[in-house]
Amino acid sequence: MYEIFERFMLAQVALTPDDLQFIRSLSTIKKIRKRQFILREGEVARHKIFVCRGLLRTFSRKDDGTEYTMRFAAENVWTTDHESYYHQIPSKFNIDAIEDTTVVLWTRENFIELVETIPTLRTYVEEVMASSINAIQGRVLGNISYTNEEKYQDFINTYPDVFNRVPLHMVASYLGVSRETLSRIRHAQLKQR
Amino acid sequence: MYEIFERFMLAQVALTPDDLQFIRSLSTIKKIRKRQFILREGEVARHKIFVCRGLLRTFSRKDDGTEYTMRFAAENVWTTDHESYYHQIPSKFNIDAIEDTTVVLWTRENFIELVETIPTLRTYVEEVMASSINAIQGRVLGNISYTNEEKYQDFINTYPDVFNRVPLHMVASYLGVSRETLSRIRHAQLKQR
Repeated sequence: MYEIFERFMLAQVALTPDDLQFIRSLSTIKKIRKRQFILREGEVARHKIFVCRGLLRTFSRKDDGTEYTMRFAAENVWTTDHESYYHQIPSKFNIDAIEDTTVVLWTRENFIELVETIPTLRTYVEEVMASSINAIQGRVLGNISYTNEEKYQDFINTYPDVFNRVPLHMVASYLGVSRETLSRIRHAQLKQR
Repeated sequence: MYEIFERFMLAQVALTPDDLQFIRSLSTIKKIRKRQFILREGEVARHKIFVCRGLLRTFSRKDDGTEYTMRFAAENVWTTDHESYYHQIPSKFNIDAIEDTTVVLWTRENFIELVETIPTLRTYVEEVMASSINAIQGRVLGNISYTNEEKYQDFINTYPDVFNRVPLHMVASYLGVSRETLSRIRHAQLKQR
């Protein structure tokens, strides 16, 4: 399973065999079963997370139980709660598994050691963060400028490998629309085809 | 004006007099008059921008002329279009000045030289990026979970020094509501006080 991570990284970053060995030596592999949590609101996000297989969801839960989905992370995607991870403070979010999932983990301490030792890794991580900012910014723009139909289409474009692995109530909670509205959008789209 | 930047940085980061001198030597000061642009859609964001005085706005403009405000950047705030700056590709956004504004600029090339020479600066920049991700994420959560009243209150909380320096149509374009809705929210809030 770890080979998935190494193959992905070698396609992204110039890493020597020694670099790869060092990155591996500080990593932990973890399996998370469907519906299990890897982070709960109030806990500190101790790890940077790379998804090798499966599907994770970051979400917020209001006191009344309503869930709001912030993002999905499937194969070959990095995730964590940045605020909690960077400042080592309690998280406002939950991360759970929508499918049986295998991840590679590094603690913040170990990851700092990695990026300080491997300059190409550091540059890569900065690029990933810049891309994250860009992606979330695109979502904000969608939130304030798109119709509900356009939001749904944007979700499909953003998550082409994910959108039909996610239960509809989670899609609705990602778009910020009711389930009824989502059903209406999907029916209208099917008719158009 | 440059002293504003140095005072701010010394309060945030451990920098030696040599570091400060080096950072200054690669910087440019620029004045932008109210309504002038520092970045236009389609241009490459060549600079990291620090606002010493004044107020900048990042926004997107649809073909029909409708504007969508992504963020504001007032005194002591870093800004740029991350996607364009990091990948040196044409920007999807505009950045203009809402007030006469003075900024300090560094080209991407020079800024890379700075963070590679000054490790404390690099760590600081990574923290700023993590905070940006966190802030935009908070806004996404607001977009999908808040009522319009809560969105307006969140805007005031996020921009306590800015919210009453911004014309109402820009506030509406930030919240993703019509001007009429914004007026209604503001009237209701005034009545409550």
